Amino acid sequence: MAKVRVHNFHISLDGYSAGETITLDAPIGGAERLFGYFDGRFIHGVDAVDAPITLDHALTSTWGQGIGAEIMGRGKFGPQTGEWTDDDWQGWWGDEPPFRTPVVVLTHHRRDPVSFDNGTSFHFLDATPEEALARARELAGGLDVRIGGGPSTVRQFLAADLVDFMHLVTVPVTLGAGVSMWDGLAEVQDRFTVESATSASGLTHHFWNRTRA
Amino acid sequence: MAKVRVHNFHISLDGYSAGETITLDAPIGGAERLFGYFDGRFIHGVDAVDAPITLDHALTSTWGQGIGAEIMGRGKFGPQTGEWTDDDWQGWWGDEPPFRTPVVVLTHHRRDPVSFDNGTSFHFLDATPEEALARARELAGGLDVRIGGGPSTVRQFLAADLVDFMHLVTVPVTLGAGVSMWDGLAEVQDRFTVESATSASGLTHHFWNRTRA
Repeated sequence: MAKVRVHNFHISLDGYSAGETITLDAPIGGAERLFGYFDGRFIHGVDAVDAPITLDHALTSTWGQGIGAEIMGRGKFGPQTGEWTDDDWQGWWGDEPPFRTPVVVLTHHRRDPVSFDNGTSFHFLDATPEEALARARELAGGLDVRIGGGPSTVRQFLAADLVDFMHLVTVPVTLGAGVSMWDGLAEVQDRFTVESATSASGLTHHFWNRTRA
Repeated sequence: MAKVRVHNFHISLDGYSAGETITLDAPIGGAERLFGYFDGRFIHGVDAVDAPITLDHALTSTWGQGIGAEIMGRGKFGPQTGEWTDDDWQGWWGDEPPFRTPVVVLTHHRRDPVSFDNGTSFHFLDATPEEALARARELAGGLDVRIGGGPSTVRQFLAADLVDFMHLVTVPVTLGAGVSMWDGLAEVQDRFTVESATSASGLTHHFWNRTRA
């Protein structure tokens, strides 16, 4: 059975995974320090960048392996809220969105799909986590589905017990405010086997695998 | 510039990476305990196997990323020595060798290339490390070259200062005898920046990146 996976999900020491308000100038809501250690170019492989292959880079590179579709919250796609009034907005990523697969964007507001030459397409859906996952599985062609965030979206899928694997990264910074990763998820770890390792950069990588019944 | 990389290279606590004599029944010369922790199916990605994604598995999966050719010693290809008297021998791996790229096999004895449908081909070459690397770079089409072992082959490329990156794995077993990884390589680590992390299984993963001049 294809898995539902979370990758490279960064969390501050005080439990936040995004800032409080997403704007065009602050795509992660002021929580940029969370990603000061993260080189996203490695999501496509340890060979994607001419730089040393560190533990952090090697683990970052598992992001796309065997992934056939992503599910993301609307805030990851863009800063608009409410009705879609600006259809020119096609995400933060320009002509080459890094996903290279279909992406389900969760929104209460109807919008036609958007496609790019590199294999990325965005499909807007008003749906429960279960419904969104069913649609993503159709789009994934038998491959795994990634839950791409933000934190509220990951939290919904965790609460619904739909996540098989999570690669979390605790970052040695405090933010003081933001969107909590863990709010309402007390004891969620009991459903998983958890392994952790710390890299030379000070990041701690956590591998959560759902315990099989 | 494309890199020269070593991946998943297992070493016992007493410094051995293979047993003493390769035979048809003992492809790694009696050092099978070295690989008791290793699930080679993950070389093709964390999605290649329906099993938990552990730190060990994630790191194993960097093996093939961006690799365009491998160089291996003759002992990795098969148990024959001397002249090639059995051309029916096409490696240990059957019809689906895991490499999926051209492979340069170092041997003093001439033999015609062998090709497989899955992209693997074996090219037999009597050459110094520098010459073998030049040939592998031609075959790699701009991608990275992996030094695939055995230990004597890795050692030759290290001694010639041709290795840019090594992922070594120390395994918590002792073998007492075998082919040493480190023989004649005193202070080789001084040319590298070394990072290490230990997994829940007890393996320690070492990332050696050649220090840039």
